[in-house]
Amino acid sequence: MTTSLSSPRLPAPPLYERIKGALREGILSGQYAPASLLPSEAAMCAQFGASRITVRQALADLQNEGLIFRRHGKGTFVSLPKAFQNVTALQGFAEAMSAHGHAIRNRVLRLGTVPAPTDVAQALQLAPGAPVAELHRVRLLDQSPVSFEVTWLPEALGNIVARADLATRDVFLVLEQDAGVALGHATLAIDAALADHATAAALDTGAGAPLLRVERLTHDAHGTPIDFERLYFRGDAFQYRLRLDRQVAAASQSILPLQDTV
Amino acid sequence: MTTSLSSPRLPAPPLYERIKGALREGILSGQYAPASLLPSEAAMCAQFGASRITVRQALADLQNEGLIFRRHGKGTFVSLPKAFQNVTALQGFAEAMSAHGHAIRNRVLRLGTVPAPTDVAQALQLAPGAPVAELHRVRLLDQSPVSFEVTWLPEALGNIVARADLATRDVFLVLEQDAGVALGHATLAIDAALADHATAAALDTGAGAPLLRVERLTHDAHGTPIDFERLYFRGDAFQYRLRLDRQVAAASQSILPLQDTV
Repeated sequence: MTTSLSSPRLPAPPLYERIKGALREGILSGQYAPASLLPSEAAMCAQFGASRITVRQALADLQNEGLIFRRHGKGTFVSLPKAFQNVTALQGFAEAMSAHGHAIRNRVLRLGTVPAPTDVAQALQLAPGAPVAELHRVRLLDQSPVSFEVTWLPEALGNIVARADLATRDVFLVLEQDAGVALGHATLAIDAALADHATAAALDTGAGAPLLRVERLTHDAHGTPIDFERLYFRGDAFQYRLRLDRQVAAASQSILPLQDTV
Repeated sequence: MTTSLSSPRLPAPPLYERIKGALREGILSGQYAPASLLPSEAAMCAQFGASRITVRQALADLQNEGLIFRRHGKGTFVSLPKAFQNVTALQGFAEAMSAHGHAIRNRVLRLGTVPAPTDVAQALQLAPGAPVAELHRVRLLDQSPVSFEVTWLPEALGNIVARADLATRDVFLVLEQDAGVALGHATLAIDAALADHATAAALDTGAGAPLLRVERLTHDAHGTPIDFERLYFRGDAFQYRLRLDRQVAAASQSILPLQDTV
């Protein structure tokens, strides 16, 4: 198919899309500041000559995108800018975020020994059902919950981590400083899911809220897997940022080296 | 706070959590294969001695996690494994995925010139309202919709891209091969959102489905921004994978080099 921009295929957007666009522009241009109250639905109906259903469709879309949020009985507000973590080296959350001037606290919800579930045993190269330490934490960024994290460690490392001050320290730092482990690399799988009941309660969000989900398997410097985690970040509060460089993908290389950008 | 694993703080999980755990184990161990039908709700109630409300709570959580999906009137099925893209170098979707043996097609929904919205103009370093090409595509992986992508290009590059076969070719390759642009680096911001009406329709999913959202700004080799995109991946169908290496974060380095892993 070939197309020319001189004959654009752009059907006129429906009214709710035009309302969305106008509100988005208002938010991005700063006309509506973060945390400020948007005009009422009635005022928008009058402004755009639209029905309440149409205005609500536009607002629902903007809410799904995370640009606005609603407080029952109080109205619709502009979302705050998201916190973000630059993903370059392997870092713990507190380590990465405190460099931005954020205050990090952790709330430990569970800590104990459990028989390793199938996927955890496989990741940590243990026999299914082998005892592993399981740690549930909520990470608070400037006192607001940002992520719910489930960590599994081989039992011996778990015993060392359990003695540490987990309210303030990253597990990575405890592994390095208290357990004397040299950390190597981690593999990450990143996708999106909806909050289940427990995660929604931990993150003070509704069930069905969007989550950035990260499965991270950290290895020591010898390549042995020692720390398996599932991290659930609030989609409306957090962002990963990274930089990629263009290079020719050689078919013979199954794992491409990361480009040195210096 | 210090805690020992010998006095674990593990409250007995509620019944719906135990049902979830049993079903998850069944799926991960292969007892329930991908795409297979799970036992009926009635059968699960009998098996676990649970009420229908409790079984449904467990199933709702597993569905939010993406492990199962429901077909109205047909029952509950185990999800297929997700497609994934290894994120190492900057690559287009077709380029990255065809290396895994996947067939990629693109459905062009819109292509035309629009006045640049505030955020697009800012990203591409253009005056607000300057003409830009706007391209809407659905990317099909093995004939199933996986991502909805909105691309903005400066008008001159847009005219070249509009003449290309966009059903099969990545914009990156068109920029390099047809427009003679040397691509440099891109910055990515990754988070999660819910599908709005248009995205849900494009991706053949329900409004409110979880999406992995990527905002990508690609620069040419001179560092000039030339391609701004928003990519929306179905949370139930796609995963980014990457590898990170541990290194000491020097406070004086504002941008850390990516570690060369070879």
